[in-house]
Amino acid sequence: MGSESKSLEFLKEIGLGSSNIGCYINGQWKATGSSVTSRNPSNNQTIAEVTEATLQDYEEGLQACSEATKLWMTVPAPKRGEIVRQIGDALRAKLDPLGRLVALEMGKILPEGIGEVQEIIDMCDYAVGLSRQLNGSIIPSERPDHMMFEVWNPLGIVGVITAFNFPCAVLGWNACIALVCGNSVVWKGAPTTPLVTIAVTKLVAEVLERNKLPGAIFTSFCGGAEIGRAIAKDTRIPLVSFTGSSKVGMMVQQTVNERFGKCLLELSGNNAIIVMDDADIKLVVRSVLFAAVGTAGQRCTTCRRLFLHESIYTNVLDQLIGLYKQVKIGNPLEKGTLVGPLHTRTSVENFQKGISVIKSQAWKILTGGSVLESEGNFVQPTIVEISPDAPVVKEELFGPVLYVMKFQTLEEAIALNNSVPQGLSSSIFTQRPETIFKWIGPRGSDCGIVNVNIPTNGAEIGGAFGGEKATGGGREAGSDSWKQYMRRSTCTINYGSELPLAQGINFG
Amino acid sequence: MGSESKSLEFLKEIGLGSSNIGCYINGQWKATGSSVTSRNPSNNQTIAEVTEATLQDYEEGLQACSEATKLWMTVPAPKRGEIVRQIGDALRAKLDPLGRLVALEMGKILPEGIGEVQEIIDMCDYAVGLSRQLNGSIIPSERPDHMMFEVWNPLGIVGVITAFNFPCAVLGWNACIALVCGNSVVWKGAPTTPLVTIAVTKLVAEVLERNKLPGAIFTSFCGGAEIGRAIAKDTRIPLVSFTGSSKVGMMVQQTVNERFGKCLLELSGNNAIIVMDDADIKLVVRSVLFAAVGTAGQRCTTCRRLFLHESIYTNVLDQLIGLYKQVKIGNPLEKGTLVGPLHTRTSVENFQKGISVIKSQAWKILTGGSVLESEGNFVQPTIVEISPDAPVVKEELFGPVLYVMKFQTLEEAIALNNSVPQGLSSSIFTQRPETIFKWIGPRGSDCGIVNVNIPTNGAEIGGAFGGEKATGGGREAGSDSWKQYMRRSTCTINYGSELPLAQGINFG
Amino acid sequence: MGSESKSLEFLKEIGLGSSNIGCYINGQWKATGSSVTSRNPSNNQTIAEVTEATLQDYEEGLQACSEATKLWMTVPAPKRGEIVRQIGDALRAKLDPLGRLVALEMGKILPEGIGEVQEIIDMCDYAVGLSRQLNGSIIPSERPDHMMFEVWNPLGIVGVITAFNFPCAVLGWNACIALVCGNSVVWKGAPTTPLVTIAVTKLVAEVLERNKLPGAIFTSFCGGAEIGRAIAKDTRIPLVSFTGSSKVGMMVQQTVNERFGKCLLELSGNNAIIVMDDADIKLVVRSVLFAAVGTAGQRCTTCRRLFLHESIYTNVLDQLIGLYKQVKIGNPLEKGTLVGPLHTRTSVENFQKGISVIKSQAWKILTGGSVLESEGNFVQPTIVEISPDAPVVKEELFGPVLYVMKFQTLEEAIALNNSVPQGLSSSIFTQRPETIFKWIGPRGSDCGIVNVNIPTNGAEIGGAFGGEKATGGGREAGSDSWKQYMRRSTCTINYGSELPLAQGINFG
Amino acid sequence: MGSESKSLEFLKEIGLGSSNIGCYINGQWKATGSSVTSRNPSNNQTIAEVTEATLQDYEEGLQACSEATKLWMTVPAPKRGEIVRQIGDALRAKLDPLGRLVALEMGKILPEGIGEVQEIIDMCDYAVGLSRQLNGSIIPSERPDHMMFEVWNPLGIVGVITAFNFPCAVLGWNACIALVCGNSVVWKGAPTTPLVTIAVTKLVAEVLERNKLPGAIFTSFCGGAEIGRAIAKDTRIPLVSFTGSSKVGMMVQQTVNERFGKCLLELSGNNAIIVMDDADIKLVVRSVLFAAVGTAGQRCTTCRRLFLHESIYTNVLDQLIGLYKQVKIGNPLEKGTLVGPLHTRTSVENFQKGISVIKSQAWKILTGGSVLESEGNFVQPTIVEISPDAPVVKEELFGPVLYVMKFQTLEEAIALNNSVPQGLSSSIFTQRPETIFKWIGPRGSDCGIVNVNIPTNGAEIGGAFGGEKATGGGREAGSDSWKQYMRRSTCTINYGSELPLAQGINFG
Repeated sequence: MGSESKSLEFLKEIGLGSSNIGCYINGQWKATGSSVTSRNPSNNQTIAEVTEATLQDYEEGLQACSEATKLWMTVPAPKRGEIVRQIGDALRAKLDPLGRLVALEMGKILPEGIGEVQEIIDMCDYAVGLSRQLNGSIIPSERPDHMMFEVWNPLGIVGVITAFNFPCAVLGWNACIALVCGNSVVWKGAPTTPLVTIAVTKLVAEVLERNKLPGAIFTSFCGGAEIGRAIAKDTRIPLVSFTGSSKVGMMVQQTVNERFGKCLLELSGNNAIIVMDDADIKLVVRSVLFAAVGTAGQRCTTCRRLFLHESIYTNVLDQLIGLYKQVKIGNPLEKGTLVGPLHTRTSVENFQKGISVIKSQAWKILTGGSVLESEGNFVQPTIVEISPDAPVVKEELFGPVLYVMKFQTLEEAIALNNSVPQGLSSSIFTQRPETIFKWIGPRGSDCGIVNVNIPTNGAEIGGAFGGEKATGGGREAGSDSWKQYMRRSTCTINYGSELPLAQGINFG
Repeated sequence: MGSESKSLEFLKEIGLGSSNIGCYINGQWKATGSSVTSRNPSNNQTIAEVTEATLQDYEEGLQACSEATKLWMTVPAPKRGEIVRQIGDALRAKLDPLGRLVALEMGKILPEGIGEVQEIIDMCDYAVGLSRQLNGSIIPSERPDHMMFEVWNPLGIVGVITAFNFPCAVLGWNACIALVCGNSVVWKGAPTTPLVTIAVTKLVAEVLERNKLPGAIFTSFCGGAEIGRAIAKDTRIPLVSFTGSSKVGMMVQQTVNERFGKCLLELSGNNAIIVMDDADIKLVVRSVLFAAVGTAGQRCTTCRRLFLHESIYTNVLDQLIGLYKQVKIGNPLEKGTLVGPLHTRTSVENFQKGISVIKSQAWKILTGGSVLESEGNFVQPTIVEISPDAPVVKEELFGPVLYVMKFQTLEEAIALNNSVPQGLSSSIFTQRPETIFKWIGPRGSDCGIVNVNIPTNGAEIGGAFGGEKATGGGREAGSDSWKQYMRRSTCTINYGSELPLAQGINFG
Repeated sequence: MGSESKSLEFLKEIGLGSSNIGCYINGQWKATGSSVTSRNPSNNQTIAEVTEATLQDYEEGLQACSEATKLWMTVPAPKRGEIVRQIGDALRAKLDPLGRLVALEMGKILPEGIGEVQEIIDMCDYAVGLSRQLNGSIIPSERPDHMMFEVWNPLGIVGVITAFNFPCAVLGWNACIALVCGNSVVWKGAPTTPLVTIAVTKLVAEVLERNKLPGAIFTSFCGGAEIGRAIAKDTRIPLVSFTGSSKVGMMVQQTVNERFGKCLLELSGNNAIIVMDDADIKLVVRSVLFAAVGTAGQRCTTCRRLFLHESIYTNVLDQLIGLYKQVKIGNPLEKGTLVGPLHTRTSVENFQKGISVIKSQAWKILTGGSVLESEGNFVQPTIVEISPDAPVVKEELFGPVLYVMKFQTLEEAIALNNSVPQGLSSSIFTQRPETIFKWIGPRGSDCGIVNVNIPTNGAEIGGAFGGEKATGGGREAGSDSWKQYMRRSTCTINYGSELPLAQGINFG
Repeated sequence: MGSESKSLEFLKEIGLGSSNIGCYINGQWKATGSSVTSRNPSNNQTIAEVTEATLQDYEEGLQACSEATKLWMTVPAPKRGEIVRQIGDALRAKLDPLGRLVALEMGKILPEGIGEVQEIIDMCDYAVGLSRQLNGSIIPSERPDHMMFEVWNPLGIVGVITAFNFPCAVLGWNACIALVCGNSVVWKGAPTTPLVTIAVTKLVAEVLERNKLPGAIFTSFCGGAEIGRAIAKDTRIPLVSFTGSSKVGMMVQQTVNERFGKCLLELSGNNAIIVMDDADIKLVVRSVLFAAVGTAGQRCTTCRRLFLHESIYTNVLDQLIGLYKQVKIGNPLEKGTLVGPLHTRTSVENFQKGISVIKSQAWKILTGGSVLESEGNFVQPTIVEISPDAPVVKEELFGPVLYVMKFQTLEEAIALNNSVPQGLSSSIFTQRPETIFKWIGPRGSDCGIVNVNIPTNGAEIGGAFGGEKATGGGREAGSDSWKQYMRRSTCTINYGSELPLAQGINFG
């Protein structure tokens, strides 16, 4: 552990030390790969060391997992729900230190770190109920003495590859549902947040062990692209849930599909807020601030594009710039901080590159635009006045950079919202029912998340989370997302002694 | 028209002549490509000529279709249902000649030809009801003064590429649902069944025109791989429904996914029937016959593998061989015929190649195995005694060739059923509840269709049709298949004046 | 037939003559009761004579119906759907004369008469789709080797007692769903609309007979309270659907419940429209006119109470009074008529009594209030300015009398809306999302139908129709209303050989 | 506390003393009625004293509850779920002493007492998930610029009247669902199990108080018929859930319905097990024993009628009689006891009366039939060979008396099963799929619970619990039972500026 050892004592509460084994394989902690350093993005000092997985570790883990899956899928679903309930309770007991770790290692502010852990807990509670509702259907047959069933069975193993910005919530979305559905989980966390991966895995592992279930039901790897590729190619893994960029997601998708596997993709967002002339400006300003600078602009649902009706353009912009200048940037664990550091040095470089391009094209930086002098990865929240035709507006710059544009009509604003390759989240601020219902209707926003009078980020687990187009089309968390973690069988049972044929066909 | 002109007079009833235009574009019949000949597989004589589409025709069609879609998606769903109801009535009025055409051009026997048209009619009736049930959800929000909606909107254009073996039913599965969901349809029928494509399109077109709707809502092309590729690549088509081989399906999938489009795939099957020791043998024999020789073995759900429990092996096999020898092969339009011709000369060649391989590996042909001497494409229904390890057993030979194998235990039979790349259909014959429920359970058949005491083929439209693994994972017709034809938006509406955040986060 | 014989020739098209047999029993037309006269409410002249049912006829009908039910409930649901589809087509073919008969005999204007028949046709189309979607559930069991099913089976016989104001649409709501669910229907139409009862029954009967099904599946009686009581008491009828007043409905309910039968009640409404200060006044005025004077105020969803925000009170009222004075009253079959006669002389007397009470309490009649001099049952559409505390405001006066009241706040308006015993329909006119969502939320309208910017009447079949409190709590037509017509069984199937107990209990 | 004070020390753990206040009103413990004695049915000694509610207490409670309801119904459903989760955790922490109290006060054996508390805990877990799934629907409108919603809102107050045999599980079924649905609960427990009522209420109350919610959300009364009648008549209580006999249930129903309130009835059962010739006899014998003597025959799902196929009649009967003679009767808290006492002296008298009638009609008592000499309420488990025509067979004798009858065919057995007024639970034991599916089909069992190869009792919470006919028709616990605790609104929202009418009607 680094020099801040005192403030890091809480790590012991969640089973972490100065050096840690990064794989949970066949119910055992074991890793034979090289060591990586987990760094605090606020000062780039070492938090702890982690040994990563090799492909041999991977293979050992997968073999055990395959075996354990045969058992797990025959455990009755409500009993699986009881295990997930216990996982939820284990997380609840460690909500504070886990949330603190998320803030420390990822760099998001503490309330967001705790909120992220709370999201897994919510998912556990939700999945427990779901474990008695993974309902199939009994469908009327057109043939006498026949019954039709639609039965849902587990897929087997679900691979989950998560990203640094939500180092555990996305695991929660996937694992809670996957587990009650009767699947084992193989998790590869982000290479730069290995401590979160380990800490969460430890809590899950303890629950499995306490219930005398094979630990291999939940197999977890710290590691990089090599392990990711192994998961994508592995024919033992019928479903791979991947969170990351559209570019990498496309590679994962093509690799998984080549073996007729299935993907659940949560890729890039390029999310817009539209502000109509009749919007509640106070609500707008708070929402844009949260959506654009929250998590230092590193949410997939971060607002990156702001479309302001010409009549309120100056008013909103002035208020925003004012707020941007006051926003407290600093240590995410300190009370009052609203903007923490970017996650890594590389993120800072990407920010710098993005700003350079913007400047080179003569777009107007209204506020921000600089990297802060510090040991950490801090940058200024930035607002850029730009044309919607600028090519940079079509891309996801993963940091706190907000593009502001003007519009005149709803149709124009919707067209602009829909004019980028990505399709994750979108919001409108208005008080007119007609505008609201057009926005959510067939010719409205083409995104997976379509909000009204709230920002683009901050989804609840009860709905399905995910987006269209280059965002990948996956849906996680609530609604009927669970169906993606199961295999559907259409069964027709003839319990009579005749053989009538469908569509009234007479054969022979 | 060929020499059989008299018997082909019925074609006039459904708008066909000796030469026909093969595209319905922007509400007009027009085609600038080369002419192809539709041949009767029973004698390889010409039925009629058809002019195919060029890429220019395609582009003209798509532009009109895109435009028409904007209108169609705002027509209220129940009104779209009324149009589909009228399409159903138009088909019902022409059930006999259309069924006859299917039999004539594809080569299946008349009751199956009529059954295929009946299936579209059933789909229309079903879709009419569905047009008032494309329900979204209102989900409880954790935030006061907020409501969460899950809204389903049309995708836009749905591309449908169908295969020769079901030249119109698969269009029906897709188009009926796609249309009530608010999508336009772009259809490319199989290159060897252009007359069915044209005849069905004519009926749809008349309904659209009678209702003063743009014909471009239903755009239809006769054509080959070039048009198929254009559909796969076209970013204006968010969903491509493809029926065909796993090999071509994989190419379509990768092409569509490369542009983050979606696929609905119905690919190869390699379907098995398992016969347990306690099965009703009379039912078994009738079912296997229908499943293995029906449609001359050219259904995607044709039974290609037969697993017989050792205790009833000889008994079932003897009865089957007896029936195979009696089965009437011949003109599919003639009463009493059970086996028509293969669809094309190429199909016959593939059959011959398959039989050669089987012979070269010394597997035992118990009955059949030859091509019949005739002007048409007739082959003998064939039974082969083989080992489950033989590589040919893992492949789909698209003709009436049945592989027979022996087993001892249920577990063994299920493992054999699941041991091929494909995962479409599967059946077990048994009278034991325990066997039935294991078969449809987590460790049972891994197919999309899992039957009991009925054959692998003959699905009803109320269930979801499709399969897993190399069969492509798509689901068509009933259940919640309609969701694939729509775009899901998770909407959160704040109708209050506060901004509470999900997961209880406090920001700023 | 009366003196208007020429204009009544259309009755022959739908099988009616000058004297008609009023019961369809065991597939035969037969009635042994006394003769009643169907009169034209526009002039009180005889349309035709009808022989009603005796209790002997009833008993004969029920015995045959019970027997037929055993067959009908085992016909596969999609096949039952096909029968209902044919009924829909039979009605479609006679849409015009049937709609004309409804207008003639009930007294509603022709577009409403045709709309009523269209509603049954819509119900048929809807029910056809439903016949493949009467889905049960497969619920995960907490016990290994167990499956839980929720199965829906037919109830048996459904009794339907309808009222004069919708002499056939309400039959349609019930019968279409009841039939696809596998129930037989026993219908008693209103005593004053026997010709509609007979004409509709004839079309249904022909379809059954053409399909060689027992006519007794649909058993129909013209008759009065005696037959109604017989249905209520009959233990062979597990469900009685009754439409009528709260007073009679209560008696039916208590009688049916005494034998542990079930009721589906559509009773009195006392429906309010609330007009907020920001409402679209043009929309309001058209809506109130349609809702208050349409069908001469004889819909169960007729608007009887109008709450106007004080700021737009005079404006709306002035416009309404203007329209009321111009509205064309007269022969409902004549083009341009908006208000036809009340249904019977008794209805006129009730109107007169109601007006007397209003006058005696010194409430202000702003327009209307009189019976028109004529041979028919015409009265003036009436607007009364009144206090919400007036006892008459709590009662349903079944005619075109509208009570107008003033309010200041939304909370007050909602409280007023909810302050009557009935709870059928309610509307608000506003443009504020907050108001809309409060209105449809937990502290909003307590009615079954809660509209926004449309009148209280004019429901679509896709939703569930019905109301709370003294309106009886029943729900008909769309949504999951079909469940009321079926019997739910929770089935647990043990297919293993062990006996684990729920809740982990260990017994012995 | 009585002489057994030592063994009763555990009562302190759950907040009980020797004298207890029996009402939780407006968040306070307070009761002004007379004192009743809770007695141990094993020895009729006093456990503790309880002060019951007066009608004044009731009124005070209801006024506070009405007020609290206004708040509770606007708390977001997932937040209500969090409260129910905490209630579940509070119960889990006291599972053992609460289960022990249920056994002590009701008289059921300890594993069943603990199982009963576990059932509430399961319900809490289930309801937490449900709190994010109380989904309404968005239904396609046939009118442009219109949306249809089906919205579910809380009812307000739900009255729950429970019976002695499940002194807390039935409260759990109702309260968990009612609470997440946004309703307050008014509970009247059975007069003879007041300590369970108080202990459970205390745990709920603590959770409400800890969360600073008004205690009046959960209002609880110890009391008798007077309080029950007050609930039934109270127009502030839109839904009354009642568990008890058909006779009292009928009175409750008619009283509640008279004020157009709704009932949820769980009344008498008269449950049969059918044993086919091919049944697994070992499974049968264990099942019948558990179903007929478990809870000393005092479950509503107790098996009271046993239909044995003639071919296995003697075999099964002999084994059963053997087991009946060995079954350990005694103190329900002692390990190994299978049969505890009847609940009260009155229960013993009813048993004696029943046996007298049986003897007077000369039916053959094969085993049992006597009251045991003891201070407690112990009787012998009894088997009677009888004719299905005997009138006593149609009645529910609430004790361990099993009627055995012989049959020859499935049809006969189903007819016998269905020949009683009650319709709660039923089971068949067979290995034939045809028999299974006929049994659960349209012409099978007419009960709400239809089991296969498990006994009539022991339902899981995931399914809907309840029965048809004189059992009252209510459904509790899982499936869509929650809908009964909510008010359905069909909402049509016009967000455009036109007024198109449904069914295409043109008005004015």
